[in-house]
Amino acid sequence: MAKKYEPINSQDSPRFCGVKTFMRLPHVVTEDDIDFAILGVPFDTGGSFAVGTRFGPESVRSMSSLLRPYNPDLEIDIFKFCSGVDYGDLAVNPGYIEDSYQMIESQLEPLLSKDVVPILIGGDHSVSLPHLRAMANRYGKVSLVHFDSHGDTWDSYFGKKYSHGTMFRRAVEENIVDPSQSIQIGMRGSLYAPDDIKDAEELGYQVITTQTLKTMTASELGEIVRRRVGNNPTFVTFDVDFLDPVFAPGTGTPEIGGFSTFEAQQFVRQLKGVNIKGFDVVEVLPDRDPARVTSLAAANICYEFISIVAWNKREDLKSVYSETAKNGEPR
Amino acid sequence: MAKKYEPINSQDSPRFCGVKTFMRLPHVVTEDDIDFAILGVPFDTGGSFAVGTRFGPESVRSMSSLLRPYNPDLEIDIFKFCSGVDYGDLAVNPGYIEDSYQMIESQLEPLLSKDVVPILIGGDHSVSLPHLRAMANRYGKVSLVHFDSHGDTWDSYFGKKYSHGTMFRRAVEENIVDPSQSIQIGMRGSLYAPDDIKDAEELGYQVITTQTLKTMTASELGEIVRRRVGNNPTFVTFDVDFLDPVFAPGTGTPEIGGFSTFEAQQFVRQLKGVNIKGFDVVEVLPDRDPARVTSLAAANICYEFISIVAWNKREDLKSVYSETAKNGEPR
Amino acid sequence: MAKKYEPINSQDSPRFCGVKTFMRLPHVVTEDDIDFAILGVPFDTGGSFAVGTRFGPESVRSMSSLLRPYNPDLEIDIFKFCSGVDYGDLAVNPGYIEDSYQMIESQLEPLLSKDVVPILIGGDHSVSLPHLRAMANRYGKVSLVHFDSHGDTWDSYFGKKYSHGTMFRRAVEENIVDPSQSIQIGMRGSLYAPDDIKDAEELGYQVITTQTLKTMTASELGEIVRRRVGNNPTFVTFDVDFLDPVFAPGTGTPEIGGFSTFEAQQFVRQLKGVNIKGFDVVEVLPDRDPARVTSLAAANICYEFISIVAWNKREDLKSVYSETAKNGEPR
Amino acid sequence: MAKKYEPINSQDSPRFCGVKTFMRLPHVVTEDDIDFAILGVPFDTGGSFAVGTRFGPESVRSMSSLLRPYNPDLEIDIFKFCSGVDYGDLAVNPGYIEDSYQMIESQLEPLLSKDVVPILIGGDHSVSLPHLRAMANRYGKVSLVHFDSHGDTWDSYFGKKYSHGTMFRRAVEENIVDPSQSIQIGMRGSLYAPDDIKDAEELGYQVITTQTLKTMTASELGEIVRRRVGNNPTFVTFDVDFLDPVFAPGTGTPEIGGFSTFEAQQFVRQLKGVNIKGFDVVEVLPDRDPARVTSLAAANICYEFISIVAWNKREDLKSVYSETAKNGEPR
Amino acid sequence: MAKKYEPINSQDSPRFCGVKTFMRLPHVVTEDDIDFAILGVPFDTGGSFAVGTRFGPESVRSMSSLLRPYNPDLEIDIFKFCSGVDYGDLAVNPGYIEDSYQMIESQLEPLLSKDVVPILIGGDHSVSLPHLRAMANRYGKVSLVHFDSHGDTWDSYFGKKYSHGTMFRRAVEENIVDPSQSIQIGMRGSLYAPDDIKDAEELGYQVITTQTLKTMTASELGEIVRRRVGNNPTFVTFDVDFLDPVFAPGTGTPEIGGFSTFEAQQFVRQLKGVNIKGFDVVEVLPDRDPARVTSLAAANICYEFISIVAWNKREDLKSVYSETAKNGEPR
Amino acid sequence: MAKKYEPINSQDSPRFCGVKTFMRLPHVVTEDDIDFAILGVPFDTGGSFAVGTRFGPESVRSMSSLLRPYNPDLEIDIFKFCSGVDYGDLAVNPGYIEDSYQMIESQLEPLLSKDVVPILIGGDHSVSLPHLRAMANRYGKVSLVHFDSHGDTWDSYFGKKYSHGTMFRRAVEENIVDPSQSIQIGMRGSLYAPDDIKDAEELGYQVITTQTLKTMTASELGEIVRRRVGNNPTFVTFDVDFLDPVFAPGTGTPEIGGFSTFEAQQFVRQLKGVNIKGFDVVEVLPDRDPARVTSLAAANICYEFISIVAWNKREDLKSVYSETAKNGEPR
Repeated sequence: MAKKYEPINSQDSPRFCGVKTFMRLPHVVTEDDIDFAILGVPFDTGGSFAVGTRFGPESVRSMSSLLRPYNPDLEIDIFKFCSGVDYGDLAVNPGYIEDSYQMIESQLEPLLSKDVVPILIGGDHSVSLPHLRAMANRYGKVSLVHFDSHGDTWDSYFGKKYSHGTMFRRAVEENIVDPSQSIQIGMRGSLYAPDDIKDAEELGYQVITTQTLKTMTASELGEIVRRRVGNNPTFVTFDVDFLDPVFAPGTGTPEIGGFSTFEAQQFVRQLKGVNIKGFDVVEVLPDRDPARVTSLAAANICYEFISIVAWNKREDLKSVYSETAKNGEPR
Repeated sequence: MAKKYEPINSQDSPRFCGVKTFMRLPHVVTEDDIDFAILGVPFDTGGSFAVGTRFGPESVRSMSSLLRPYNPDLEIDIFKFCSGVDYGDLAVNPGYIEDSYQMIESQLEPLLSKDVVPILIGGDHSVSLPHLRAMANRYGKVSLVHFDSHGDTWDSYFGKKYSHGTMFRRAVEENIVDPSQSIQIGMRGSLYAPDDIKDAEELGYQVITTQTLKTMTASELGEIVRRRVGNNPTFVTFDVDFLDPVFAPGTGTPEIGGFSTFEAQQFVRQLKGVNIKGFDVVEVLPDRDPARVTSLAAANICYEFISIVAWNKREDLKSVYSETAKNGEPR
Repeated sequence: MAKKYEPINSQDSPRFCGVKTFMRLPHVVTEDDIDFAILGVPFDTGGSFAVGTRFGPESVRSMSSLLRPYNPDLEIDIFKFCSGVDYGDLAVNPGYIEDSYQMIESQLEPLLSKDVVPILIGGDHSVSLPHLRAMANRYGKVSLVHFDSHGDTWDSYFGKKYSHGTMFRRAVEENIVDPSQSIQIGMRGSLYAPDDIKDAEELGYQVITTQTLKTMTASELGEIVRRRVGNNPTFVTFDVDFLDPVFAPGTGTPEIGGFSTFEAQQFVRQLKGVNIKGFDVVEVLPDRDPARVTSLAAANICYEFISIVAWNKREDLKSVYSETAKNGEPR
Repeated sequence: MAKKYEPINSQDSPRFCGVKTFMRLPHVVTEDDIDFAILGVPFDTGGSFAVGTRFGPESVRSMSSLLRPYNPDLEIDIFKFCSGVDYGDLAVNPGYIEDSYQMIESQLEPLLSKDVVPILIGGDHSVSLPHLRAMANRYGKVSLVHFDSHGDTWDSYFGKKYSHGTMFRRAVEENIVDPSQSIQIGMRGSLYAPDDIKDAEELGYQVITTQTLKTMTASELGEIVRRRVGNNPTFVTFDVDFLDPVFAPGTGTPEIGGFSTFEAQQFVRQLKGVNIKGFDVVEVLPDRDPARVTSLAAANICYEFISIVAWNKREDLKSVYSETAKNGEPR
Repeated sequence: MAKKYEPINSQDSPRFCGVKTFMRLPHVVTEDDIDFAILGVPFDTGGSFAVGTRFGPESVRSMSSLLRPYNPDLEIDIFKFCSGVDYGDLAVNPGYIEDSYQMIESQLEPLLSKDVVPILIGGDHSVSLPHLRAMANRYGKVSLVHFDSHGDTWDSYFGKKYSHGTMFRRAVEENIVDPSQSIQIGMRGSLYAPDDIKDAEELGYQVITTQTLKTMTASELGEIVRRRVGNNPTFVTFDVDFLDPVFAPGTGTPEIGGFSTFEAQQFVRQLKGVNIKGFDVVEVLPDRDPARVTSLAAANICYEFISIVAWNKREDLKSVYSETAKNGEPR
Repeated sequence: MAKKYEPINSQDSPRFCGVKTFMRLPHVVTEDDIDFAILGVPFDTGGSFAVGTRFGPESVRSMSSLLRPYNPDLEIDIFKFCSGVDYGDLAVNPGYIEDSYQMIESQLEPLLSKDVVPILIGGDHSVSLPHLRAMANRYGKVSLVHFDSHGDTWDSYFGKKYSHGTMFRRAVEENIVDPSQSIQIGMRGSLYAPDDIKDAEELGYQVITTQTLKTMTASELGEIVRRRVGNNPTFVTFDVDFLDPVFAPGTGTPEIGGFSTFEAQQFVRQLKGVNIKGFDVVEVLPDRDPARVTSLAAANICYEFISIVAWNKREDLKSVYSETAKNGEPR
């Protein structure tokens, strides 16, 4: 690789210095010489309750200043193995979801055509649909690994097909996701109707509810996920309301009884070695995040995603990918 | 009038008690026996910067508990002269502005057909357009009295005709407002282009900027407004960003250098006696209003509107309507 | 039942629309055709440290908009089995605890006389006493199931018999609670004196401290509680400071080292099948709840209460009530 | 004077250091060798809307760290002329207003018996009544100078004689204030009934509303006040809701359209030379004061009070007390 | 000029999109083809009370998204006349003031050597000193126009020569400012000693206190300032505590009784035509700015500075520079 | 012991009353008749990211009002066994770390010379170094028990030896800590380099990371710690970022995936019986703690420290010190 893009050295300027890019990466709009690109998608017209996630990218970038380049839990010195940039925000048209879908999809194309892994920061969850469309254009039907308290497989909201509650039904209908190799993780909370989860299963998704996941270890989840997605090109989407509202108050539709960031870290790290072609972290709503813990959590989830990109580049280590859980794993 | 709707007596239950309706009025969906109706319009898809005004009606209702029935400045015991209800919120379709416009317009029709004065609490400013459409259906072209820091007469935003920055151009184009009998008050702040204010004037509006208004007394403004609108059926719209950001931080596009609530009260009270058929207060964004002063201000502006409805019912007092400013008026 | 009261359908108007009632139930003051009634009790004169819980009902109602009618964990489609209303707030006399006690007790009487289950939203915990008095009038001595970090069995505060720290001693003295069939759950935190917990036990209560409960599963707790209260008419009171301060910062006397909402949900659901005649959730203090997680938690606790009311109506399912814990129960 | 109590020198320890007393004065419970004493009165059972002013003294003390010993506007080096302490808080009985009244009155007696000027920090406004009782015991009927948006001369609230809305009627009835030498300043906002202000006048008070005061200069007000109170022993009470809600959001019953701190400073400084025997600043509610501007304002009002105590000790300067307004006075 | 740097067009991407630079200017580290450069200086070790202004630049950049390119009050289409970039933040060494001074000074040198006008966003006020040193290196002794509530001419704080309270004495001692052509504007608040203002005057500064300025019009101030600084190379420093604490709560040492943003705009615009070589806006402390009004105000002050840079480039208009105040100027 | 210093009795004055000292202890500057002293150290110049911990002591004192004298988990009636005061804050020189180090060290000497146990409330973590220096002067090389998410064993930050990230390397170099009898607990989060933890181990420390600790019980940790420190004079330091950011958002460099307060209580209580000569709790940053949970947690950690001081005085109970974990210990 001709050029290496990596964060500013924090011994050169303190971490609180500088125009705020993700993890102090250079803000360059390029598709060359990079393995991943961070992209903000400040779109929130798809939100059904509290809105304002258009300010999510700014806030996640702000808290990401705290991230450092070595991930001790995945034992990876990230920028020894990969290169990446903060690509900036994708332009969107606030108030107009279908127009914005087209804008998002077309702006992702140049990156995907070079096999760069896009890591999107939402924005509301509706932005996963154009991302999936762009991925399917490039890779064919993808696997979905979906962390969330909601399944987002409604048929419509207020009579409309596009919103942050419907896109994973759309994705099946549009044939861009293969539900038989996909999994939804963390569903919980009150429902509109008894069949909401059965509906997702009927679409073909595997669903692991919070109630079930709370009885599992991370390794057990990891094995299930890896078995489900196999080596398929995979899209990982992380809605911050997978976390408990005290870990992610800054979101549009919080559901109590969720997961801690420690748990989320354990779960997400299980994805190392999976053939992931795209990620997003969505539904960060800074105006409802007075202690900024949501943005901090989201920045750290992105950090695990970047770490996985790097880990997947460590050719020598891939053989260990099927390792089983260590003794003494925290529950 | 067969029935009188008025607030709960605060000697029966303290003001902090009860399901929160505006000013503790009964929440009744009726068009009968009322002079005015308070309606929330929790719609914010038209917002171009910060969003979340869909929670404006709830927050304004909450702070309106502090309002009492006698207005000492207009010297009016409101419910001796009129009756009104909290009609609840108009249903809208979040994320879909044109659908919502139709929903808003049709839900207002029953009230207007009985000459009830609707007082809307936004929501973003885009909701004024369906309100004006409904009014024009009933009354023909109306006069507009528009308090705001922005003229909202752009042709389009991001290529779209409908947003919270374009509706007063649309209203002229749709022939539902008579700009030659209308006035915009309080424009200030940086502009996209030198001609922004001239454009409004070319549409036919009279424009009084903040810089000009700061040199005037309230009576001087009152005289100009009354002369402008004459006896035409009139719509009064109050964007809370007319106020300075310290008086209304909870709004989507604040502009420094604005007005105090004291000044706003003086200005709005000048409208007594004007032939007003509808009002709104818009752009209250509770998530950015940590001390709730914006909601309190908006509740009080609504209160002045209700007071004017009552004042206009005081037949005997209408003759004094052309009274000139008292000596010693505060500047 | 002649009439069914249930929440507004969220496909008719979005969940953020409308005058805020609990869970979007109709606000009707009726004792007929209902199984439960939500009642706010905006009283906080009994508070010994931070006050302002008079705004608790408003805030819990606000966050309850997020609740949907199907409870997947109890597998119950609530309004298929029961009917309920938001009855509004009980009138109180701020600053005067004994007067307010009488007002609360007498206002509950019409509901209890028709065996409607009152679900009160405080207000400070002192409001449980008049509720218990009203229940004892109707049902005789009741069992108490009390989730809290404090036992509230002090003899007096600053020389006074009535406050939010004394009512469960009063209840024994007044012979309205049967302590031998009652249980206190979750006590923790520093104490004024070594005997504070022993005192409660000497009054006759069973006490399970946080330190003990942290070693138990929810089913284990459930079995203890069900054994303790038997089939006695039961009152369930949930002080939000049972939760850890990060899950419920908005409360008057927080104690660290408490429970998560996930744990609380597991515990409360164990009460299904118990002969519960009344509930309350108390001590929500919105002014200290910047991310609104406390109100969201309290709304969800009420939701579990309503679910239990519905569950207890499912005649066919009652036989399973003694089921033991599933394997793999989360600890 | 044997001993001089004055603030810690900020060159010895920075202003943010130390246990927080008012203005970094020593916390000593003494009546000797002092001209004034700062006393917190953390009582809020009298509040009719938002409560929590029991934390007012703590918060005002916290912000008072910013105060320095020389007042350039009154041109007085305070501790050259007087001595004072932070006496701590008066014990009260939360939830019990009449008991608390007795406690407050009796705790003030030792100070008044030595002619120390008490400067109370509330707490809700109801605490002025026991203060007035104590003053009348010592000095006979006093004059009242009352800055507030509300007259607080209601007969009762919810059927009760004691609350933060009734004490200045009680004071006349109890013959402890001479209304004919007293003045209320700043009344505004909606009223329960047309006669609310007339009632105060019928009790004998002079009332200057906000609407009137906005047309006056500070000197004009000063002259009116000095003429009204003459040389009578005087009590000055400053409810922070005299200020506009943006200058004092942290208060229980805010009214828009009020005064700035600049205006308040000009008004209060007019009281120099008046025979003031006691002061209070009340209704600071820290939980609603996110930017702490209310506490900062209240600390500064206390500072002007202390400055006046010092000014009144400057024997040589008393002759100038009748000076008229300077040219160029700000309006 | 070869290249023109100007803000992103808000019709291409909405104003909330993108990595946050000041006013959406390109973030380029260049000294060529620019008239001004925005620089953050995230340094706060000089703060004597509340600290955290190191996050000021980020927050001011965030709110500056709201700024548009045409300034209607100065009637200037900014980027028709000038070009500028967001240069990013200067590296500093937190905790070490003298090292940071050297770093700041040397990083400014390349810009000043090309006569680019630096516009610094602090950071605490201590950063003005290295800026002045760099300016004096380039231009010789400069004139100071200093908006602030404090004179910052103390000799030392806690025995140290460098802090945010001493730099304008240092500047005179170091012979880098000419006090006889300099002016301090807005001083107010309690002082440590009677001579604090006299000391500044003895150093040679002209001082206009708040109390005086409140009696003046903006034009009167403008004339005084222009007369004082003449055509000397001038440095303008704006401490946000010049504003009243409700307009700028987010600052380290607020003083009540200050100015509104409207007043500040009028005052600052008077500087058009002055020979200004450098600007700063300092003391924005985002952690104490819950409604973000301070950052919004500071962004707007920078905007006026940029507008003045542009205005001064309008060769044809310079002749009007001595114009007198219009009739009807707001007071 | 001649005199016993203990908290004010909360039956004499409610807990919200009074000048705020830690736990309502008397504020006395004495070294006599006390076993421990609480000291604030409002110093934050050593902070590398967010600053403002100089307000930590005030905020921790404020929340400590909630603490009561009996610790039921350690079964100790604290003031039966010991006496202590709030000594106030140590004077520091903001902006000057080495000066402040000398000031802190010398101010601790009088307390240590009388074997009083100092319990410091920071301030940033850099204040542990002068504390250790003072302890080593008195007791020789001490053992360190260090709860934190960061090891703070960097060589330098931005080229400087003293900051809040370097002091436990300095302590080894200065020979004031014996790393072979010391332990660091809780390290987690991204690192600058792979060797950061190995470096600490090479200095001689034992390091237990979060990832490891999450698999252990409190008793297991207790045994390891007690074995490590033996009977050596020991210093215990608790950085609140050991806690998860939702339990301690108010801190300068939060790391997700941390511990709850319940876990922290279990761990800290294991230290009973250890020969502890000094404690601190550091890095509380109130401006980022909107719900005040961080200050509440820190106050409770101090409370456990005081409890341990008392516990260690219970001569009769010391024999049980090697007791092993109870069955059923929470994990």
